[in-house]
Amino acid sequence: MRADFQSWVAAHQARFEEVLGGLLPRADIAPQRLHEAMRYSVLDGGKRVRPLLAFAAGELTGAEAVRVDVAAAAVELIHAYSLVHDDMPCMDDDVLRRGKPTCHVQYDEATALLVGDSLQTLAFQLLAEHRLNDDAARQLEMVKLLALASGSRGMAGGQAIDLASVGKSLTLPELEFMHIHKTGALIRAAVLLGAQCGSVSAEQLDRLDHFGKLIGLAFQVVDDVLDCEADTATLGKTAGKDADNDKPTYVSLLGIQGARDMAQRLHREALETLAGFGDSAQRLRELADFIVLRKF
Amino acid sequence: MRADFQSWVAAHQARFEEVLGGLLPRADIAPQRLHEAMRYSVLDGGKRVRPLLAFAAGELTGAEAVRVDVAAAAVELIHAYSLVHDDMPCMDDDVLRRGKPTCHVQYDEATALLVGDSLQTLAFQLLAEHRLNDDAARQLEMVKLLALASGSRGMAGGQAIDLASVGKSLTLPELEFMHIHKTGALIRAAVLLGAQCGSVSAEQLDRLDHFGKLIGLAFQVVDDVLDCEADTATLGKTAGKDADNDKPTYVSLLGIQGARDMAQRLHREALETLAGFGDSAQRLRELADFIVLRKF
Repeated sequence: MRADFQSWVAAHQARFEEVLGGLLPRADIAPQRLHEAMRYSVLDGGKRVRPLLAFAAGELTGAEAVRVDVAAAAVELIHAYSLVHDDMPCMDDDVLRRGKPTCHVQYDEATALLVGDSLQTLAFQLLAEHRLNDDAARQLEMVKLLALASGSRGMAGGQAIDLASVGKSLTLPELEFMHIHKTGALIRAAVLLGAQCGSVSAEQLDRLDHFGKLIGLAFQVVDDVLDCEADTATLGKTAGKDADNDKPTYVSLLGIQGARDMAQRLHREALETLAGFGDSAQRLRELADFIVLRKF
Repeated sequence: MRADFQSWVAAHQARFEEVLGGLLPRADIAPQRLHEAMRYSVLDGGKRVRPLLAFAAGELTGAEAVRVDVAAAAVELIHAYSLVHDDMPCMDDDVLRRGKPTCHVQYDEATALLVGDSLQTLAFQLLAEHRLNDDAARQLEMVKLLALASGSRGMAGGQAIDLASVGKSLTLPELEFMHIHKTGALIRAAVLLGAQCGSVSAEQLDRLDHFGKLIGLAFQVVDDVLDCEADTATLGKTAGKDADNDKPTYVSLLGIQGARDMAQRLHREALETLAGFGDSAQRLRELADFIVLRKF
């Protein structure tokens, strides 16, 4: 990882933490416990991969940083809500997330349910109450895009397919279908929403969408590899969970080397989609490298 | 209830069922089980009080019916999601809703969690993807309004306060604060969103907001009275639940006659806020009567 990319990541992560802290309801406003738990579940954690993709895409299209901040926060709140709900006992029943007790362990299940619900609502509130694009009709398109990426035909739908697949043997296309929904849709939305805060043509948006799709899939393949290789301390969440739960993964389908090869292929294809953008896409390229080469 | 109001209600309820059926994802589209459970949780049930309020407010402001349909559906989906999540074991742990097994009983808890999540997302998707107002900036305001009414400082926040109040004795202002959030916020949003599909001044919107606040509170007071009086078969949900759970209610605070008196006072005040509207507010007046005088 090049030094200037490293400092770009660190600077954006730190600034984004401030942004999130300012956009989340304060913990001293009623209902205090709910607001405290919302902040607990969002702040001080995570690599912020989706926000970083939004920032990089926003740089590509010359977007104002304050606008991309809000778009990135909306995507990250959807991601955070999905983690809180996925960790609950009726779903993955996980006790550790980002090195901390999960929300329902730290608080209680009812609070975790409401935290997830409220984080989702806040995501849409942010997209509606801040100016993200000079054209309000375009901004409504952005709200729709996030909703489609998050709902029953996006992320939540992928989660439903995932649940239904426990103990089943999936084919590679079936596994891909699941992940394109479960994690891919929101990663694509991060790239597209960041880009749409600036000036972007329909053709450029198409290419960025393709980039987002490939890198979203690569992200999941690498996740499966890391989940298989890493220990819990490095990962900050319970390792080997998917294999323990008899969930199909890229590693279980392709073997560890096959999964690594697939990640490399997706990485290469993702970089190819950015060929026409020149230097302005440098951060997106570096993020693609980061996503595929990361060790945690 | 006057005969022509009765047929207005019946006609709108029937038409709205068609509208919801068309806006919800079809059960034969993947993930099928999730989509089937979403339809199970929304269709064929409920008095549709919030949509009826939206329709009546839309008639008042001369809104196109197809636009109010979408606004009403968005509000009803938020309401339906909150019922699915509230019924779950970690919240109210209820097995009966609208005379049918609750979602997590009919399906399973994980599915109920995703159903609620996806219904919320769909509500915002609808508000963003359909034309509700000629002015897109105004429509963004409508998205924001629904988000504020639903989130941690609206409905979900009220639910959190409700959870925290089990076994505690609340004062009347504290109970009112809870209900203004838990049920009142969404009822107000129904009135305002219906009105904003048409042409309405800021001053008229203020009055409608006040009407929504009063009638939302009246709705809850009447709910408490009915919950205390009715048996489970009439109510279509488990009766006496709140008292059993040692939750504070208007009946526990004011006695049954005191609660009835309060509902009547709120009813009278709500009608007064509509005084300036003339005949165009007739349906809203009749709905106010219906909400306070209903027996189920």
